[in-house]
Amino acid sequence: MRLTPKNELEYRYRKLQSEMAGAGIDAVIMVQNADLFYFTGTAQAGNLYVPASGRPIYLVRRDYLRARMESALAEVLPSSSLNDLPGLVSDHGHSAPKRLGLELDVLPVNLYLKYRALYPDAELVDASPLIRRVRMVKSHYEIHIMQDAGNQADKVYKKAAETIREGICEVELAAELERFSRLEGHQGHVRMRAFNGEVGGAQVLAGPDAAAPAAGNTALGGMGLTPAFGHGASYNRIRRGEPVVVDFASCFDGYLVDQTRVFAIGSVSDRMRRGYQDMLRIEELMMEMAEVGTSWGGIYHACLDLACEMGYADNFMGTPGSQVPFIGHGLGIEIDEYPFIARGFESETLQVGMAFAFEPKLVFPGEGAVGIENSFYLSEQGLKRLTFSRQELVLL
Amino acid sequence: MRLTPKNELEYRYRKLQSEMAGAGIDAVIMVQNADLFYFTGTAQAGNLYVPASGRPIYLVRRDYLRARMESALAEVLPSSSLNDLPGLVSDHGHSAPKRLGLELDVLPVNLYLKYRALYPDAELVDASPLIRRVRMVKSHYEIHIMQDAGNQADKVYKKAAETIREGICEVELAAELERFSRLEGHQGHVRMRAFNGEVGGAQVLAGPDAAAPAAGNTALGGMGLTPAFGHGASYNRIRRGEPVVVDFASCFDGYLVDQTRVFAIGSVSDRMRRGYQDMLRIEELMMEMAEVGTSWGGIYHACLDLACEMGYADNFMGTPGSQVPFIGHGLGIEIDEYPFIARGFESETLQVGMAFAFEPKLVFPGEGAVGIENSFYLSEQGLKRLTFSRQELVLL
Repeated sequence: MRLTPKNELEYRYRKLQSEMAGAGIDAVIMVQNADLFYFTGTAQAGNLYVPASGRPIYLVRRDYLRARMESALAEVLPSSSLNDLPGLVSDHGHSAPKRLGLELDVLPVNLYLKYRALYPDAELVDASPLIRRVRMVKSHYEIHIMQDAGNQADKVYKKAAETIREGICEVELAAELERFSRLEGHQGHVRMRAFNGEVGGAQVLAGPDAAAPAAGNTALGGMGLTPAFGHGASYNRIRRGEPVVVDFASCFDGYLVDQTRVFAIGSVSDRMRRGYQDMLRIEELMMEMAEVGTSWGGIYHACLDLACEMGYADNFMGTPGSQVPFIGHGLGIEIDEYPFIARGFESETLQVGMAFAFEPKLVFPGEGAVGIENSFYLSEQGLKRLTFSRQELVLL
Repeated sequence: MRLTPKNELEYRYRKLQSEMAGAGIDAVIMVQNADLFYFTGTAQAGNLYVPASGRPIYLVRRDYLRARMESALAEVLPSSSLNDLPGLVSDHGHSAPKRLGLELDVLPVNLYLKYRALYPDAELVDASPLIRRVRMVKSHYEIHIMQDAGNQADKVYKKAAETIREGICEVELAAELERFSRLEGHQGHVRMRAFNGEVGGAQVLAGPDAAAPAAGNTALGGMGLTPAFGHGASYNRIRRGEPVVVDFASCFDGYLVDQTRVFAIGSVSDRMRRGYQDMLRIEELMMEMAEVGTSWGGIYHACLDLACEMGYADNFMGTPGSQVPFIGHGLGIEIDEYPFIARGFESETLQVGMAFAFEPKLVFPGEGAVGIENSFYLSEQGLKRLTFSRQELVLL
C-alpha cells in the first residue's frame, strides 16, 4: 500500500498557503474526498483546516485510527462533531478566520450553512479555484503513480484486443475490461468533480450506437443499459466492419489516466479509416504546440480549425447541437481537473507538471465514431506520454 | 428498454404537489440525477420545474432529443442556458415563485447562487425532505423493478458460491461479481445521496480484514486497494475457515436492492456460526415487528436491545468507537433513501410501499464479521422480501 510521503504533503499545503496569501484568505476548510486525499494522504471522513501559515489540522470523524495510520500529517485529531471545530482550531493557536475558504463548487448548501453558523462573522469565499490550481501541477511523485496507471491502461487495451469478437455485447466487453482492471489495481470508481458527474465503467461503443449523445459533457455518449443511467455500453452487439470505441479511465493508487482506442473486426469503411488517421494528425498538432506557455484555448482553436479544414465541421467532438467545446481535460485524482483544452481558456497557459487527456474524436450519425485519446504530462523536457499503447486502429 | 409510463410520472408529481401545498412551496426546481430520473423517467441534464399545480416543465440542456424520447412528460423543452428558465416558465403561465424549493442537501453552493440570482425576490427553501418523502413510498411499478433487481441479487449470490476458493483475493471475487452483474443488467454505478457518498463495487470482506472500519457510515468497512479509496475489497486472500462477507447492491433499470451473505471454505468457529444464527434471529424480530405504523427507531432499539442481551454490545454494527447508529436503510434509486431503521427516527412510522434493506451484522476484531442483509417492502399484505437467496451461512 503506497502512502503519500510527509514531504509531499508539506509541499502541497505550502503551495495552497501561498495561493491563500495571494487571495487574502485566512484559512481553508476542506471536506470533499478528492481534496482530502490530495492534502492528507487518506480519505477518512472529516475536516482539514489549513491556516494561512503553520501546519494543517485534520479533524477526523471516521475512522480516526485509520487516518492516523494513513496520513503523514502531524496534526490528526479525532473529532466526532463539527461543532468542536472552532474550539480545536483555536486550541492550536489560530484566531477565527476573517476570510474563510470553502469548496463552494462541490459543497452542498445544507453543509455550507453549518460552516456559516460556526463562523458567523467570517466572509465565506470559494477556495476551489485555488485548490484546483494547486492540484493542477503534478509532482514527480504523482507522475510516477500516473505512469503506473498508464501501464494498467496498456494491459486493458491488450485485453480488449483479446476479448472482442463478433456478436458479443458492448456491455460484455465493458464488464470484462472492468473486471480485469480491478485485478490490476483499479479502485472500481472514477472520481468526477462536476455536480451530477457520474462516470460508469468502460465506455465501449460500437457502430451507430456510438453516435448517441448523452447528458454528460462528452463527445461520445452511448446508450447505456437504462434511461436511469443513459450512457456507456449497452446490449448492442458488436458486428463485423464497424468501429468499436473503447474509452477507459484506468486508475491506480487513486490516480487516473484516460485512453481510447478503436478496434474493428475485419475492416472499416474508408471514411472511418481516414477519420481515424486524421485524428492522429490532430494529436500530432497538439503535441507540436504543447510547451510551457502555450495557451490551453489556443491548442483547442488550432485543432478545431484543422478539423474543420479536414471537412469535419459537423463531426468533430460531436454533431451539430451536441458538440462539446473541448478536446482535452486535465486529470489526476479526478477526471475533470485543470487544464481544459477548451474554448474559453484562451488566457491560461501550460506549465511544467500539468497532466491532461487529449481526445480528438469524430461522430458520424448512422455509422459510428472514431478517434484517439491519450494522457500526457508536460515535463521539463517537453510533453511526455502517460498512455502509450499502439496508436493504430486495431483490425482483428 | 423500460420507459417510465406517463401515469406513473403523473402520480409522482401530483404527490409532490400535495406535499408542496402542505409546506406552502410555490415551485420546486430539481437538477440532481436521481430526482430527475424519478420525476421525468430519464436523466438527461437540465432543470425540472414543478409548479404548485399544473404540469411540470422539463428544460433540457443535454440531450434534448433523448429526453424527448425517454420522458413521458408532456412539457419537455430544449434550454441551453439556465438564464432562460424564468422566461420559459413564465411563458407557461406561472408567476415567479415566492417560495421556491431546491435540493439543498445535494445542490452545490455555486449552483445555488445561480438560482438565487434568477429569483432574487424568492425565499429559497429545502425541498429535499419533501422529494425524499414522495420517493420513499414505492409504487407497484417500482416494486416490480426492484423484484427484478432481487432476481439479479440471487444470481450474484450463486455466482459467489461458485467462485470462492481458497487463496483468491477479495478483489478477484469482487471483480467477478461486478462483471457478472453487468451482464445481468447492472448499470455499473450505485447512487448514494449523501455528500462524499462513493459506493465501490462488491463489498467482499474476508476474515479479520472485514473488521477494518472505514470512512463510510457502514458497519463493515474493509481495506480497499488504496488509502485514496479506503473501503471494500482488498488484495487479502481468502483462507479456509474464516467468514467471507459478500455484500452486493444489485441494480436493474435504475433500481437497487441490497443483499449480504456469508460464505466459508470448510467451516467457521463456533462463535462465528452462533453469531450468524443470532443475526438471523434479529432479522426475525424485525420481520415480526414491521407493519403499518411501526416506528423506524422502535425497530432499531428493539433489535439493538436483543443484540445486547445476546452479548453483542461491543460487536453489533461495529466495535466501540466505530459502531453505526442504524441497522437498515431505505433504498430505491439511491442506496440511502428513507426510511432509516436507526436511532433518532423514533417518531417516524412504516407505511405501505416503503422499501428498505435490513442488515444486522457483528464485527469481531482479529477474527472477522458475520451477518445477514436482505431487502424488503411493506405491502398491503404485510412485509415481503425483495431478496430471497438461501438464508444459511454457506459452507463450501
